Amino acid sequence: MNKLSLVAFLLLCFLGLAQAQSLKSPNGELVMKFSLLNDGTPSYTLAFKGKPVVKPSKMGFELKTKTAAAASGGSDANMDQKAVNLQSSLHSNFTVADTKTASVNDTWNPIWGEVKTIRNHYNELAVTLSQKGTDRQVVIRFRLFDDGLGFRYEFPTQKNLTYFVIKEEKTQFAMAGDHTAYWIAGDYDTQEYDYTTSRLSEIRGIMAKAVTNNLSQTPFSPTGVQTSLMMKSKDGLYINLHEAALLDYPAMHLNLDDKNLVFESWLTPDAIGDKGYMQAPRSTPWRTVMVSDDAREILASKMTYNLNEPSKIKETSWIKPVKYVGVWWEMISGKSTWSYTDEYPTVQLGITDYTKAKPNGKHGANTANVKRYIDFAAKHGFDGVLVEGWNIGWEDWFGNSKDYVFDFVTPYPDFDVQGIREYAKAKGVKMIMHHETSSSVRNYERHMDQAYRFMKDNGYDAVKSGYVGSIIPRGENHYSQWLVNHYQYAIEKAAQYKIMVNAHEAVRPTGVARTWPNLIGNESARGTEYQAFGGSKPNHVTVLPFTRLIGGPMDYTPGIFEMDLTNKSHVNSTLANQLALYLTMYSPLQMAADFPENYERFLDAFQFIKDVALDWDDSHYLEAEPGEYITVARKAKGTGQWFLGSVGGNNARTSTIKLDFLDKGKKYVATIYADAKDAHYKTNPQAYAIRKVEVTSKTKLSQFVAPGGGYAISFVETSSDKAKK
Amino acid sequence: MNKLSLVAFLLLCFLGLAQAQSLKSPNGELVMKFSLLNDGTPSYTLAFKGKPVVKPSKMGFELKTKTAAAASGGSDANMDQKAVNLQSSLHSNFTVADTKTASVNDTWNPIWGEVKTIRNHYNELAVTLSQKGTDRQVVIRFRLFDDGLGFRYEFPTQKNLTYFVIKEEKTQFAMAGDHTAYWIAGDYDTQEYDYTTSRLSEIRGIMAKAVTNNLSQTPFSPTGVQTSLMMKSKDGLYINLHEAALLDYPAMHLNLDDKNLVFESWLTPDAIGDKGYMQAPRSTPWRTVMVSDDAREILASKMTYNLNEPSKIKETSWIKPVKYVGVWWEMISGKSTWSYTDEYPTVQLGITDYTKAKPNGKHGANTANVKRYIDFAAKHGFDGVLVEGWNIGWEDWFGNSKDYVFDFVTPYPDFDVQGIREYAKAKGVKMIMHHETSSSVRNYERHMDQAYRFMKDNGYDAVKSGYVGSIIPRGENHYSQWLVNHYQYAIEKAAQYKIMVNAHEAVRPTGVARTWPNLIGNESARGTEYQAFGGSKPNHVTVLPFTRLIGGPMDYTPGIFEMDLTNKSHVNSTLANQLALYLTMYSPLQMAADFPENYERFLDAFQFIKDVALDWDDSHYLEAEPGEYITVARKAKGTGQWFLGSVGGNNARTSTIKLDFLDKGKKYVATIYADAKDAHYKTNPQAYAIRKVEVTSKTKLSQFVAPGGGYAISFVETSSDKAKK
Repeated sequence: MNKLSLVAFLLLCFLGLAQAQSLKSPNGELVMKFSLLNDGTPSYTLAFKGKPVVKPSKMGFELKTKTAAAASGGSDANMDQKAVNLQSSLHSNFTVADTKTASVNDTWNPIWGEVKTIRNHYNELAVTLSQKGTDRQVVIRFRLFDDGLGFRYEFPTQKNLTYFVIKEEKTQFAMAGDHTAYWIAGDYDTQEYDYTTSRLSEIRGIMAKAVTNNLSQTPFSPTGVQTSLMMKSKDGLYINLHEAALLDYPAMHLNLDDKNLVFESWLTPDAIGDKGYMQAPRSTPWRTVMVSDDAREILASKMTYNLNEPSKIKETSWIKPVKYVGVWWEMISGKSTWSYTDEYPTVQLGITDYTKAKPNGKHGANTANVKRYIDFAAKHGFDGVLVEGWNIGWEDWFGNSKDYVFDFVTPYPDFDVQGIREYAKAKGVKMIMHHETSSSVRNYERHMDQAYRFMKDNGYDAVKSGYVGSIIPRGENHYSQWLVNHYQYAIEKAAQYKIMVNAHEAVRPTGVARTWPNLIGNESARGTEYQAFGGSKPNHVTVLPFTRLIGGPMDYTPGIFEMDLTNKSHVNSTLANQLALYLTMYSPLQMAADFPENYERFLDAFQFIKDVALDWDDSHYLEAEPGEYITVARKAKGTGQWFLGSVGGNNARTSTIKLDFLDKGKKYVATIYADAKDAHYKTNPQAYAIRKVEVTSKTKLSQFVAPGGGYAISFVETSSDKAKK
Repeated sequence: MNKLSLVAFLLLCFLGLAQAQSLKSPNGELVMKFSLLNDGTPSYTLAFKGKPVVKPSKMGFELKTKTAAAASGGSDANMDQKAVNLQSSLHSNFTVADTKTASVNDTWNPIWGEVKTIRNHYNELAVTLSQKGTDRQVVIRFRLFDDGLGFRYEFPTQKNLTYFVIKEEKTQFAMAGDHTAYWIAGDYDTQEYDYTTSRLSEIRGIMAKAVTNNLSQTPFSPTGVQTSLMMKSKDGLYINLHEAALLDYPAMHLNLDDKNLVFESWLTPDAIGDKGYMQAPRSTPWRTVMVSDDAREILASKMTYNLNEPSKIKETSWIKPVKYVGVWWEMISGKSTWSYTDEYPTVQLGITDYTKAKPNGKHGANTANVKRYIDFAAKHGFDGVLVEGWNIGWEDWFGNSKDYVFDFVTPYPDFDVQGIREYAKAKGVKMIMHHETSSSVRNYERHMDQAYRFMKDNGYDAVKSGYVGSIIPRGENHYSQWLVNHYQYAIEKAAQYKIMVNAHEAVRPTGVARTWPNLIGNESARGTEYQAFGGSKPNHVTVLPFTRLIGGPMDYTPGIFEMDLTNKSHVNSTLANQLALYLTMYSPLQMAADFPENYERFLDAFQFIKDVALDWDDSHYLEAEPGEYITVARKAKGTGQWFLGSVGGNNARTSTIKLDFLDKGKKYVATIYADAKDAHYKTNPQAYAIRKVEVTSKTKLSQFVAPGGGYAISFVETSSDKAKK
């Protein structure tokens, strides 16, 4: 290096340093540093209490460049290669044109949620970058909360960046160690994998085993994993990577460079391999890094919601938490069928005459059976009844890439829409609609208005939608921009009709329910149904709240009391564990998934499901460790009644908690629904004991939890210290 | 060959012969022979008056086979290769299970058309084939008319063929010689190529030149051409290959094996390369071979319509031929713009505030200008006024793969929807809606109901739709099954609203307008607009009726009087040629495309456009030679008035015709709008002469036609032989 070069080098270093920007969280524990590398590549780091969480990580995009041939209609391909490279690189050659800081500390009240009021408290840094040679601007906006970092890219209105196509988003998350990760395989079409717990460096070796069969699946890399990704460092940091406000953009996976332990964003491609069609002004979703040395703080974090926009629905009185039963588990567990007849090799809507078809005798959604569920719901105070398989088309709905697969308005001959409507109305029960799309998305959109109108005409104000199987338009993926746009379209159109949505197999939620609170649930992970497909891992429910639930509630469909199913599958859970799920798997939508006849066998335990609230003024996470246990106490909205749930993992344990969340000076009777001493998810799942004890805020509780077990408590106030009033 | 083999061979030959089936056309001039080759491959031939038209040609399909891996969800790929091969081959190993013959001779009356009554007269052979080893059935149905052959594949309801995916359709058309062809390049995304006249063997050498630039284009083979393909053999046979009733199936191209002169079907693929998703019972479109030794018979053929189903619209009184003017040519020719403002680098519907934008001062669809066209239409008796560029979004509508590009209901600030509605109503003129989709097909379908309702609310009952640019969903093609399905969806939904459709850039028509007569027009070829994009070949309009018009009417937008355009392009046509197009380019939808001020300069010639009818009781093709000339006389529906049009090609000629189509014993004054002697499409296009002559059915007419010229005649009856009455 000659002297001139040395001077230039030092100058660049100086400039680099000069452009470094630091941002602290409100409590000062988190520090984010932004800088430009010498080649003008944006970079950031994150530290928690002085410990590195994200090491220097690059940011930016590779764009798809229109070749001159394409631009001119096909004839001339002589566009200068240097110009192409410059146009396609939106990740280097940047200078800092401007920086702005801001601080926000306010609160907002969710329409439904775990707490009454959510604090939104962060410090913000917005860095405006200008690219040399292209005069293109990108703003990177960082928001640093006490519980983590969110940042996004913004593309302001400008002359040289109008429409562009993202080839790759190149956002890195460089990990500081070989963390333990709770992960599922990255996949463009399914989120329904079992979680694996392993070191980051072990992912590659385990991947083949982690990719189990699914009805539609497209894994993409031996080190590709999904968000929300939960990790734990050797020195006790809990780190979660996810995204917030995923709107009209492909869902982000993470691909690990396992030599350097650097994750890089891996967007879901469309049918031709492109990753995002953009028009400025636009922003990407937020990339989030939650971090704490207390696992409970991860569960309690509201950062994902805070990074979403406030509700766009002005009048929200029609959005209500729903506790429901349904004609569903009997099909899942092999007792009855969605289809009406076995007579035809294929069916065609509008052509097949179902009134002339021989019924198969096992159709679950028949009027008498539905009325039985309505009776049960009415008797036990449930809000709604879901019925699947009510509409024609189920005979060949899956695996045939069938475009016109359902019409969403025509019932089977044995499902009396009007009769059921009147019956449910008389009993004070709401019917819940089911729209399985078979992933034939165009067909769903074509029928959507009519389908939603049909719902309103027949007293349904919530819909469970489904996207089983491979997507039509063919070549598209469940989590590509096209589909993300579609799921959102369905939510917003439903809002126009005042319909609540619970979308299954749709993209994992990212807090969008703040903006569209009619999105009251999603599946987007292995739900209870997998207990009927061979069984889930006993600790599955101790991982989901750290991963899948970070973005929003899950329609997990708990409440299974009979663990040995018609189809011979076994539910790997104790009955007490099933009760605890109504607390630990927060959702404004909760099913009691088992058959009425099974609940009638255990009415004392069923009482908890009847009692438990759906909406909360406050929540306290008392114990938490991913893969091991979660214990949470919640205070019901309106009544102020406390409930508590605790789930364990693969092994027995003793949960030791303080009840200091209870109101001081009050006495309560706690009804404790717990595993019996000999309970076990495999061999003795129905062994539970219910006991009542008198407690106060000073009580300490030690409670046995069986393998795959748990316990649930409802607290009823018996007296209060009158002197206090 | 040993003796046993010889016996087996002879036996196979015998069986082959035994299975040969012969079918004759009603007049006996056409003979189709069907047979199975020795390996069980279906094969057919066609002869006309003893001359071979189609030499032995194979039929069948290659199917996409689900691998065991796909079927089982990804893990096991050990499906037996032999089984895969057998499953994928739907083109051999067939035996004839059954044959059925039928004869039909009836008539039907089209809602609109060239003749009042269409005769449907054919002999039919349906061969049921059964495949050895798979027990799959395919029916090949042949219909032999006097003017050609149609055949299709039918897949009846059966156990072993329910859902299947077509990898390739393998229908051959083996030509008997190196014919002269009038062809355009096969392409998945555009039909807007200039026609090339060449021998079949010359196609490969010319292809590179034939593929000219287009805004969206995907040529696929150096010997790939489009249907309808017109050919002429050395011995004077006119042969046309096309398809009929293209519904929910990809459009067929033809790929030429130019060593053997065998065309094979080449279906348009979808985004992942698949060619057709099928569910039995289903049929393919009809493959058609029209043949005659008289070119006029090709033009007069109604075989394509006969192979389509009768109208599915019961009440058709709202479907009416339309003669219209419009705010269109001024944008095409560079005088004004679709867009309203030049102020923004991009616009976003619902966000961009047009009321605050600075108008560019050249917006064609402003209220004052529209009213000028309404005035002109009312004054001269036109039915409608088309307005393009009335709705927001045109600033960046093209080339950006913009999903939410138009909403089809929001006007620019200077387009007063209600004011124009009332003004047009008062003047007795219908407004014609314009829906440019920018090929963002999902967006169009999402807005379609609202857009059609908006039309009805504002007095529009016809829509011109457009599909400029590359298709969204990305990767799809203009003529793939997905899009064919979409165009049909738009037509059928429009019918629900009693809206007539004129779809531009949609798939070439195949007679579907018989079934859905609200499809009153299509573009699907180079229309007059190309005269503003550098000019069309002078003989272009002598080819289109033999090719593009075989499947249905074209919104060709004739009537250009001023050939030198604002944008410096020159219209390669004489003014008299433009008049003749109203006859030679049959359509129930005819535009007078030029500016009012240009018509006012030539009111005597304009009189013909005002007078000419749109719907006909009878048509007589008097002269025809592809690429050279077409002369046709038509009798107006209702009035019984005769009109005649004749167009020429590149060179001057003399048209010699007999007027024996006129009613015997009647006298007429024929007003002849003809090229002046010194007229020439390039140098003197506006040189025309109008003369009146008295004629009868015995008159012979000799008429000069300039290069790129033509003539038009309107006949007015002056007296009739009273004795006859």
